[in-house]
Amino acid sequence: MATSGADGPIDLSACCAPLASEAMSAEDAVTLSARFKALGDPTRVRLLSMVAAHDGAEACVCDLTGPVGLSQPTVSHHLKILVDAGLLSRTKRGIWSYYAVVPGSLEDLAATLVAGAPARV
Amino acid sequence: MATSGADGPIDLSACCAPLASEAMSAEDAVTLSARFKALGDPTRVRLLSMVAAHDGAEACVCDLTGPVGLSQPTVSHHLKILVDAGLLSRTKRGIWSYYAVVPGSLEDLAATLVAGAPARV
Repeated sequence: MATSGADGPIDLSACCAPLASEAMSAEDAVTLSARFKALGDPTRVRLLSMVAAHDGAEACVCDLTGPVGLSQPTVSHHLKILVDAGLLSRTKRGIWSYYAVVPGSLEDLAATLVAGAPARV
Repeated sequence: MATSGADGPIDLSACCAPLASEAMSAEDAVTLSARFKALGDPTRVRLLSMVAAHDGAEACVCDLTGPVGLSQPTVSHHLKILVDAGLLSRTKRGIWSYYAVVPGSLEDLAATLVAGAPARV
């Protein structure tokens, strides 16, 4: 079971066993589907990819608005959903927010799909 | 780029490079997010897990309605979304529909999250 809720991002590190290993509990399915739902939007997939592919797997919000062609408030809204899903972290430096991929989060999610995916780093 | 559209399920076999390898194109992000969106619902995650964990990775819809506690039309609706997303296939035998995990589909999806995930079988 993973922790989740209004008080912090989803933590999948203890959730979930690979889909095919056993029928998933209703509780784990809620946790896991919330993370997939965060990725169920093309803008968020692009933003996550842009951050992940950026030098140091970190990017300033100021670098993201231009390529996706959306306003900064809209981009920040999508980034917040990725932060709440436990996929990105946010650090404020000066006037800008910087977003980084949470180490191990993509590996954890892949491991729920396929047994034997690369282990959490 | 992957094929998708009203005329068939999403085919991710040629889509997409791992998120972190390069900033994803808008077109690939649409294809990929559609598959994640199909998993963005706890009932569908449970159904996919139940099918994947079933003997032979195939299950009759008649075996799925009881455990999730929903009507057969509702379960069939969720299963159709997973079929349209290219994650399940459907075969009718007698009066029942049987659902199976599309070989390689979960591996393909995991590979978009993490470079080096197990290859498509």
